[in-house]
Amino acid sequence: MTAINSVGAAGAVALVGAGPGAADLLTLRALKLIQQAGAVVYDRLVSEEVLALIPPGCLCFDVGKSRGRHSVSQAEIGALLVQLAQQGLKVVRLKGGDPAIFGRLAEELDALDSAGIRWQIVPGISAASGCAAATGIPLTERGIAQQLRFISAVDKDCNTAQDWASLARPGQTLVFYMGLSALSEISQQLIAHGLAPDWPLLLVENGSRPAQRQLLTTLAEAATAAQHMALQSPCLILVGEVVLRQRQLVPLMARLKQQVGFLAA
Amino acid sequence: MTAINSVGAAGAVALVGAGPGAADLLTLRALKLIQQAGAVVYDRLVSEEVLALIPPGCLCFDVGKSRGRHSVSQAEIGALLVQLAQQGLKVVRLKGGDPAIFGRLAEELDALDSAGIRWQIVPGISAASGCAAATGIPLTERGIAQQLRFISAVDKDCNTAQDWASLARPGQTLVFYMGLSALSEISQQLIAHGLAPDWPLLLVENGSRPAQRQLLTTLAEAATAAQHMALQSPCLILVGEVVLRQRQLVPLMARLKQQVGFLAA
Repeated sequence: MTAINSVGAAGAVALVGAGPGAADLLTLRALKLIQQAGAVVYDRLVSEEVLALIPPGCLCFDVGKSRGRHSVSQAEIGALLVQLAQQGLKVVRLKGGDPAIFGRLAEELDALDSAGIRWQIVPGISAASGCAAATGIPLTERGIAQQLRFISAVDKDCNTAQDWASLARPGQTLVFYMGLSALSEISQQLIAHGLAPDWPLLLVENGSRPAQRQLLTTLAEAATAAQHMALQSPCLILVGEVVLRQRQLVPLMARLKQQVGFLAA
Repeated sequence: MTAINSVGAAGAVALVGAGPGAADLLTLRALKLIQQAGAVVYDRLVSEEVLALIPPGCLCFDVGKSRGRHSVSQAEIGALLVQLAQQGLKVVRLKGGDPAIFGRLAEELDALDSAGIRWQIVPGISAASGCAAATGIPLTERGIAQQLRFISAVDKDCNTAQDWASLARPGQTLVFYMGLSALSEISQQLIAHGLAPDWPLLLVENGSRPAQRQLLTTLAEAATAAQHMALQSPCLILVGEVVLRQRQLVPLMARLKQQVGFLAA
């Protein structure tokens, strides 16, 4: 076993998807890279369970953007990755979900390419796939939803420019990322553009994590219901008929226990 | 270690995403379930590399729908899963990519629920995420693509009913699944509805596998170029400005070797 932290060896950056939270939803490739890392730079959405896998002695940098704290800019993150790699470290840039989906991937690749740093991307389980599996719903279904759309709701400029008329069509599943604060506007716009007020909407807080909570509601009632349950980020918003497939008769905790049972068999 | 194949124990079915092909893009949970399986029922898109992980003595059923062979119907697949579970087996239903995305998940869950069989879903890396990582492109990018759309192109009825006007908008990334045979129609419709003929399109054959081939082209030239390269399924079609982010200066094989190097470090 060679020392991977030794200065002088060529550094490199792996941009790694940490998945939705559960440590065993990491890919084998992601786990291997984390175990070999000399430095890990991670986001707010990476779970404690995943962070616990980082080997002792590994440099750790929390660049998550939390409210009320100094926020690390993308430029600073890029510079940090370059600096660590230039020190010869194997750097893992750990991002919640899949780095290619709403993960600011291009900006970090640009910083690395500008500095001539080697990199690779390791895909991760997206929040949508994780939430679908954990709630028992298909994201697509023949005759119900032939299309699946991931929409960023967080960018204020782009939010007002959403193609609401096209989003407010049946036959598709909508997944809004980072949309909890915009839930009221999302629901109102979809109704205003033609979806029925009782069109189904599923909210999944902490999808795939032990603290998962979910709420099956309607466009008209979503904002009030979310407030009543005091739902917090990360919370995925799924809109469409497939969410009625949520297996409500099986309480979540029973389902989770059963999974653990199968795993331990 | 208890015998997991013993008749009499409660059987169960895990619907498991096998990811895009590379065995180390399985999740840890998926690998564990495969290793514990008494029976595996798999699709055409599950790679040889993943199938090689099935333990000796495990019952294996290939229900893939290949041309020129007897095609196993969804009803037959559902019945097979129920039958195996009723024999007390731990059954892994292995599907390429993520089972919740164009994976006929609902139909199989219905069959299991009707028979009272316990099940769980294990999400997988979708083909889109796998191809994005393997080609170095972000699926979303601020100011370029705020939306990501997965579209099934295989269902003839629904294909003609596509919302082409909404698909032919800038500011989004389109991913067509199972669309190689419809490539010519897809390109023509997108141009007819307003996208420029030189709008970028990326074809990725065998994404993330050693045999991966990719082709950056345009809407106008895609069909001819795909024919010239004799591209085969599985082949993902990505449309949108993000595909220009494909890192063409880094030859694919060099990138793959580099990854292996990092992994072996």
